[in-house]
Amino acid sequence: MSTLETMSRHRCHGGVQGFYRHASTACAGPMRFALYQPPQAEYRPCPVLYFLAGLTCTEETAAIKAGAQRLAAELGLILVMPDTSPRDTGFDGATGDWEFGEGAGFYVDATEAPWSARFRMHSYVVDELPALIAANFPADTARSGICGHSMGGHGALTIALKHPGRYRSVSAFAPIVAPSQVPWGRKALPRYLGENPEAWAGYDACELVRRQTFPGTILIDQGEADTFLEAQLKPELFDQACAEAGQPLLLRRHVGYDHSYWFISSFIDDHLRHHAEALG
Amino acid sequence: MSTLETMSRHRCHGGVQGFYRHASTACAGPMRFALYQPPQAEYRPCPVLYFLAGLTCTEETAAIKAGAQRLAAELGLILVMPDTSPRDTGFDGATGDWEFGEGAGFYVDATEAPWSARFRMHSYVVDELPALIAANFPADTARSGICGHSMGGHGALTIALKHPGRYRSVSAFAPIVAPSQVPWGRKALPRYLGENPEAWAGYDACELVRRQTFPGTILIDQGEADTFLEAQLKPELFDQACAEAGQPLLLRRHVGYDHSYWFISSFIDDHLRHHAEALG
Repeated sequence: MSTLETMSRHRCHGGVQGFYRHASTACAGPMRFALYQPPQAEYRPCPVLYFLAGLTCTEETAAIKAGAQRLAAELGLILVMPDTSPRDTGFDGATGDWEFGEGAGFYVDATEAPWSARFRMHSYVVDELPALIAANFPADTARSGICGHSMGGHGALTIALKHPGRYRSVSAFAPIVAPSQVPWGRKALPRYLGENPEAWAGYDACELVRRQTFPGTILIDQGEADTFLEAQLKPELFDQACAEAGQPLLLRRHVGYDHSYWFISSFIDDHLRHHAEALG
Repeated sequence: MSTLETMSRHRCHGGVQGFYRHASTACAGPMRFALYQPPQAEYRPCPVLYFLAGLTCTEETAAIKAGAQRLAAELGLILVMPDTSPRDTGFDGATGDWEFGEGAGFYVDATEAPWSARFRMHSYVVDELPALIAANFPADTARSGICGHSMGGHGALTIALKHPGRYRSVSAFAPIVAPSQVPWGRKALPRYLGENPEAWAGYDACELVRRQTFPGTILIDQGEADTFLEAQLKPELFDQACAEAGQPLLLRRHVGYDHSYWFISSFIDDHLRHHAEALG
């Protein structure tokens, strides 16, 4: 277990918004995350909600822009917001392209060199980070939910579907649901996983839900004015896959809302309540 | 009246968060501001709450970090968040010092060259911006309140006290209340206003409240873990000045809170309700 370094801590809504860094085994280097402790965490272990951010984001993005702390303080939820990839990897092509590499880890365990040495965000989020949280914070990690936005919505859906029983609740904002079929995924997945459609399917929510459903309703919010809606997001594909698999899905489409955190902050409370209900 | 240029608009909490630019007469160059229109603005004119930000901030800071839109949407308040100074002035010494010049306009009308040509944030906020809002948005500018943080708290208090009847409500987070007496003010005011203590007093809340009280309770929130508390903020000076002047003041001190927007976002709802009550 690596040592946790506190970058900063701020009193917020009666709890503490902290920013932390540690040496990651999964990602073979330093990783950063933000964590909000609600006031209740001073007295008892609290359930945990992971929020996975999208392309170009860091551990600061959702912490600053989503506006989740207010209701998390009321509901007694710990919020964990990891960075979206390892940083300063020095790999050729790891920076300079917002759709691939640093800031674009896609929540996979890469199998192709050089990415396989550092880009293991799936193991990081599923195994290493929860153990670190359990060891360092008053967290009841048996009660965990997962949420995310865009690439992070893809992360939340695939992680919840791949690990039945690990998460009691899952939701997403404007998620990439079929990376095997859309430009973002068709660009990133081959470079991380090789030219192997079966490997891509292991990180494709539409494929995964056909193999194993999630024991609970999946909540997805999608803005109708989202410029990525038609080419990259295609929620109708997940809607159809869920219908065929018998997966309960609440897919809400919101007129006028775009892909930004202005959209997320407008509906984050509904997601927190969705998770709090499942996390008890 | 200058033409308003829309930089971006985003659906948010049923209303619209916009970012705008225009050619300012007061500041003799382009100025930017953020404005949130609540859903009610589609049907009727809404009261206006100005939020003045602090040193280093822009029109984006409070819009992104304060988390005010959620309750503003419920209460039907228009939020106006201007930039903290003119930009790209090219004046010697206007950049490179976070405590003076661009990003540090101190909400004064400078009288010293070269600053007097552009740094006229007092006239901009009090006269030009309200006229621009009235002409371009469904605003009931007769019902206006003003709020601010740190240097912007100083701006809100001095503007409200200097213009009786113009604002129905005023509040501040961790304001500079006695710029004539603290390092931030002693550094900036002589450069903007000359070596004239009477000119400084015209922008000093502690001095102004002794000359003319505000017709209503002033709300101030202050964090006790604010690193600027003892040297720069000194709320006890305003507390004493208000007591001597018979000015109703609700000064709340919050254990553990610092100077950041983590503090502001924790108490912004109380400020919005304070203003909404006065604005009807």
